[in-house]
Amino acid sequence: MRASRVLRMTLEYDGTSYHGFAIQPGLPTIQGVVERGLTQILGAATRVTPAGRTDAGVHAKGQVISFQTDSCRPAQTIGRGLNALLPDDIAVVACNDASPSFDARRSAVRRHYRYSVWNDARPSVWWRDYALHAPGSFDVEAMNVAAAALVGRHDFSSFVGHASQEPAATSAVRSVERAEWNRRGGLLHFFCSGNAFARHMVRGMAGTLLWVGRGRLSPQEFGQVLAARDRRAAGPNAPARGLMLVAVDYEEETCL
Amino acid sequence: MRASRVLRMTLEYDGTSYHGFAIQPGLPTIQGVVERGLTQILGAATRVTPAGRTDAGVHAKGQVISFQTDSCRPAQTIGRGLNALLPDDIAVVACNDASPSFDARRSAVRRHYRYSVWNDARPSVWWRDYALHAPGSFDVEAMNVAAAALVGRHDFSSFVGHASQEPAATSAVRSVERAEWNRRGGLLHFFCSGNAFARHMVRGMAGTLLWVGRGRLSPQEFGQVLAARDRRAAGPNAPARGLMLVAVDYEEETCL
Repeated sequence: MRASRVLRMTLEYDGTSYHGFAIQPGLPTIQGVVERGLTQILGAATRVTPAGRTDAGVHAKGQVISFQTDSCRPAQTIGRGLNALLPDDIAVVACNDASPSFDARRSAVRRHYRYSVWNDARPSVWWRDYALHAPGSFDVEAMNVAAAALVGRHDFSSFVGHASQEPAATSAVRSVERAEWNRRGGLLHFFCSGNAFARHMVRGMAGTLLWVGRGRLSPQEFGQVLAARDRRAAGPNAPARGLMLVAVDYEEETCL
Repeated sequence: MRASRVLRMTLEYDGTSYHGFAIQPGLPTIQGVVERGLTQILGAATRVTPAGRTDAGVHAKGQVISFQTDSCRPAQTIGRGLNALLPDDIAVVACNDASPSFDARRSAVRRHYRYSVWNDARPSVWWRDYALHAPGSFDVEAMNVAAAALVGRHDFSSFVGHASQEPAATSAVRSVERAEWNRRGGLLHFFCSGNAFARHMVRGMAGTLLWVGRGRLSPQEFGQVLAARDRRAAGPNAPARGLMLVAVDYEEETCL
């Protein structure tokens, strides 16, 4: 095999119909569909590495993947060719040559997520797959006071994994740079950026902050949940459909 | 049967999975689903009248329906009850008592439609069901010069029905008050308002205006198409998925 060329590709997808990013035998996954298409276009079995493995039902506007190829076709031609093969709920946003050392996961320096809540008495047809529907009032100011405690380098064990699971063996220490809620009409958006996120971490934070918004936890008690480093102290994970991987940043430039 | 109460209800729906508004035996339709739900809630067979019968694949943010009922339950309770029964691609936006003479179709004084085009080289996951994907450049200024000819009271026979059909026997005289294109990022929106629209009329106008945008017709030639009152003079209907019934106005107030 020749020295490989590395490509970097940005994808958007509606995760509603998929069992998450990571390939699973016999189940529709983003990785499965994308690798099948690339293998067909490039004429050789192709494996991709994502910046983040999104869960079942989670969406992406700016997922980044990297892969090796011996093809000498222009990157844009490969991107266009893949778009023609992909189903309409997955699309290539960009495809470029990267340095041989580029790895979508290891090279990423920052991930941007958004969690959305449709906060209205009636359901929304347009947000049905992209937001949690939660009627009633939320104290957004209290949610933001609480969310401010997340910014910085912390052990996020309280928000990692399912509530029913034992704490994970791997470290949950991460650096969060931004954690804030905004209201835009009937929508509440939680913007969360950091160097990396452990499994279910954004959904665990969002679900627990929604408890703060309902007055079930005070912002002070939310700080104690974070400090507890115990998943059982926090609220439930907010449902997957409200979560969007918005963008991933790399050293040299911002993607998307 | 007692003197009936008339209710006015505003609906939003994603028309992707339906064979249009109007009921058709054995096929999923908006009317079929809504009438089944209302019949269940009200305990009596209920027929509804819409402001406009949207075609298969066409969406609505502000479709208005009217129906009679002997129920004495509050209108909001009926709306909420129906929302609980409806699938997630149809939702009740509002439900109110109306005057006994109110009829969603005959009382309407103005309809507002929007036709959307995703104008980018790559497809959009988010607009896949809500816009026509058309890459390449469009001369939006020329499209707006042409569209201005639509404003006023005209015989719109050139834009009514399918291109393959003979002209309809019924009159195609309508009054259009607004017809203009706006660019918003990668999207082109055609806003079209008028007292009423004949079948396929907005899609026929949008499809022919896209020909103007491509330089296939000049704005002057577009005026000749309108004047011809002949469906064969115009371009093809733009696909249904780009069309949205945005709102319907009534004498006393604006709906939505």
